[in-house]
Amino acid sequence: MARWLAGSEGRLKQAALDLFVERGFDAVTVADIAETAGVTERTFFRYFADKREVLFVNHAAYHAYFLDALAASDATTPIGLVEAALRGGADFFPLERRPQSRIRQRVIDSSPALRERESLKQVALADALSAAVTARGVDPLAASLAVQSGVAAFQLAFAAWLSDEQERPFVAHLDDTLGELKRVLG
Amino acid sequence: MARWLAGSEGRLKQAALDLFVERGFDAVTVADIAETAGVTERTFFRYFADKREVLFVNHAAYHAYFLDALAASDATTPIGLVEAALRGGADFFPLERRPQSRIRQRVIDSSPALRERESLKQVALADALSAAVTARGVDPLAASLAVQSGVAAFQLAFAAWLSDEQERPFVAHLDDTLGELKRVLG
Repeated sequence: MARWLAGSEGRLKQAALDLFVERGFDAVTVADIAETAGVTERTFFRYFADKREVLFVNHAAYHAYFLDALAASDATTPIGLVEAALRGGADFFPLERRPQSRIRQRVIDSSPALRERESLKQVALADALSAAVTARGVDPLAASLAVQSGVAAFQLAFAAWLSDEQERPFVAHLDDTLGELKRVLG
Repeated sequence: MARWLAGSEGRLKQAALDLFVERGFDAVTVADIAETAGVTERTFFRYFADKREVLFVNHAAYHAYFLDALAASDATTPIGLVEAALRGGADFFPLERRPQSRIRQRVIDSSPALRERESLKQVALADALSAAVTARGVDPLAASLAVQSGVAAFQLAFAAWLSDEQERPFVAHLDDTLGELKRVLG
């Protein structure tokens, strides 16, 4: 298992993921996580509001990968802007993150409540991207259609990347699903 | 306001929507709804698990409009099958339903928790459609991309239909957004 996270926050995350997989999400307490990470509960609550947030705390940083790439793009079509944003998002997932991403996904998939929260985070990402693409002068309808289709392609690329036994980078999977999206709707 | 719903269930729905708009969703109790509809609370609970369910109870019937149209279609492409399903879904919204749909949407939009629940219902619809399209022999990746893009177009058509001051049928708005989807991704 990858141990690439440093510091108290990183140790808490790693401890939480290990425990969620080992005992099931519902059975793990904050006290368990803090003890395994070798810190106090008080330290846990400096970083996370509750044990669920350990799985979702990165979202602001994650969104920034998409939004910064969008801001840097000089594309002029709705889908061109969206593809630039998605390639930025792909950079959030280097191969060395994959072991942790797989474990996190296994935990999410084990709980309907966590799956719902994950879905809502994806809706929030699509809303943020639609607003940012619209702010570039794109018609809101075109922006929303390009974003929602693109985010669907991104999620399918993510699933393919997680289950891939080879070392193909995320962006190669993203190219596949974006190509398929255009083929399906062309 | 349209009063097209008959029977205790219909009266309860209409009373609930009226009260939600008048007082705000959070301020309304099941006792208020039952009293306004002229039935007992016990009768309310024969139809609905709680006051939130008044807004979402139709979902199985709603999904059936999509799935039945999909089953009846002899389309052979992923997007052809999806368009057939969406046209079936459009039949759920005749013009005489629009006054009630507008009120329901106003209530949903007023509450983050209700908006989240609505988002999750849309995810569930997309999942059900993806499974049904895949069962027609379509590759799962192509099915999911066509469905998620199509459902995005359907939601945008719904918003346009709700805000339309004219009498254009839902399916005309759907044709617009599906055309725009192909243009954006073409």
